[in-house]
Amino acid sequence: MSSRGQPVFNVYPVGNYSFGTKAPKLEKDSNVNERLSRLKANYEKEGMRRSAEAILLVQEHNHPHVLLFQLGQSFFRLPGGRLRPGEDEVEGLRRKLSNRLAPTNAALQVVWDVGEVLSVFYRPNFDTMFYPYVPPHITRPKECRKLFVVQLPERCVFAVPKNMKLVAVPVFELYDNIPRYGPIISSLPAVLSRLRLNLQFVLPPPPPQQQQQQQQHNGYGQQQQQEQHFPP
Amino acid sequence: MSSRGQPVFNVYPVGNYSFGTKAPKLEKDSNVNERLSRLKANYEKEGMRRSAEAILLVQEHNHPHVLLFQLGQSFFRLPGGRLRPGEDEVEGLRRKLSNRLAPTNAALQVVWDVGEVLSVFYRPNFDTMFYPYVPPHITRPKECRKLFVVQLPERCVFAVPKNMKLVAVPVFELYDNIPRYGPIISSLPAVLSRLRLNLQFVLPPPPPQQQQQQQQHNGYGQQQQQEQHFPP
Repeated sequence: MSSRGQPVFNVYPVGNYSFGTKAPKLEKDSNVNERLSRLKANYEKEGMRRSAEAILLVQEHNHPHVLLFQLGQSFFRLPGGRLRPGEDEVEGLRRKLSNRLAPTNAALQVVWDVGEVLSVFYRPNFDTMFYPYVPPHITRPKECRKLFVVQLPERCVFAVPKNMKLVAVPVFELYDNIPRYGPIISSLPAVLSRLRLNLQFVLPPPPPQQQQQQQQHNGYGQQQQQEQHFPP
Repeated sequence: MSSRGQPVFNVYPVGNYSFGTKAPKLEKDSNVNERLSRLKANYEKEGMRRSAEAILLVQEHNHPHVLLFQLGQSFFRLPGGRLRPGEDEVEGLRRKLSNRLAPTNAALQVVWDVGEVLSVFYRPNFDTMFYPYVPPHITRPKECRKLFVVQLPERCVFAVPKNMKLVAVPVFELYDNIPRYGPIISSLPAVLSRLRLNLQFVLPPPPPQQQQQQQQHNGYGQQQQQEQHFPP
């Protein structure tokens, strides 16, 4: 059985990660119309919007889960976002991830090990539809979104903006579930299936010395108990 | 713009390929129940069934199309099939492709350039359901199907068994179309989106000498006109 082109990914237990909070990140737009107007204005200045998003995996009950931001009751999105004009995709994705997920304490910065592109979606028009191809007769799509798989370290501390909620959703819950997650996120199970996911079981806690250092640095003593990784 | 992990694939016009016919390949089972009984009998002897299937791409109207076998009005499948116990996946896929698509004339054998695995689907039980993951609580799936992308040569001659029909279906037609194509084939647009498809335009015919040789060898003079690559 060859493993032709199937990269191996380690997926660690969700309990290996600490989830704290940090200052809120305000949304730039308060509704879809505002968002589309801004897209249009930027398109006229800079051309096609480029976005990069991260697929971050954790393991729970021996099944892979994807980390998603949940907005309100029914809107989910992957961490990541719009790249600056000319910005390198991987650098831009790391910037977005640190902005949205890393603690402000410099000693706790996460090294984002960005892997390969798993899918690419295009927005052909100034509306909310995306497709995993450029539809015929479209010569200038308005946005290109690339989804990268990111290998998480064995352990790390996340800091989630106070106005946002991070959830870990099982892959089986995303599958064939366009009504709840939309076409991009519900296609994740299929695009992830080419990876060989090495599900890691719960690991012993780090040695006491290291643990002490971590507590000293992170300052999330109490917030660690508000772990935000409930499957919806 | 980095092209991190996005392999480049050349996709040639459907008109570059000739489609002839050859002796029919009979189906081993006449209905779903027979098929499931055979799966079960083989599982008891050999363990989990392994299958390998090929995603073969052609270009038409500047849009990628996938080659599918169409059975009757409403059943589609990718070329490929069951591997023998212990058989290498790539070797087994090449054997299946030659069996189903290559001319019997040895001089016209197609070199199947098997690329990476794009998705993997599992059959957890002895029924017709497949998922792109092993569902929780399933320890022994009954079948594992791997889908490989295969780089076609710039030109070649296919020979399709007389009882089968080969169609080229546009990617936009497959997308989000589970009712017609099922969950595996309708997820192809998403899993293909990570590839950089280099759509090639119609190329000039091969030089006269080579052309003459081809006609001499293939013996599909008339059948070449029955090209079976209509989008449904």
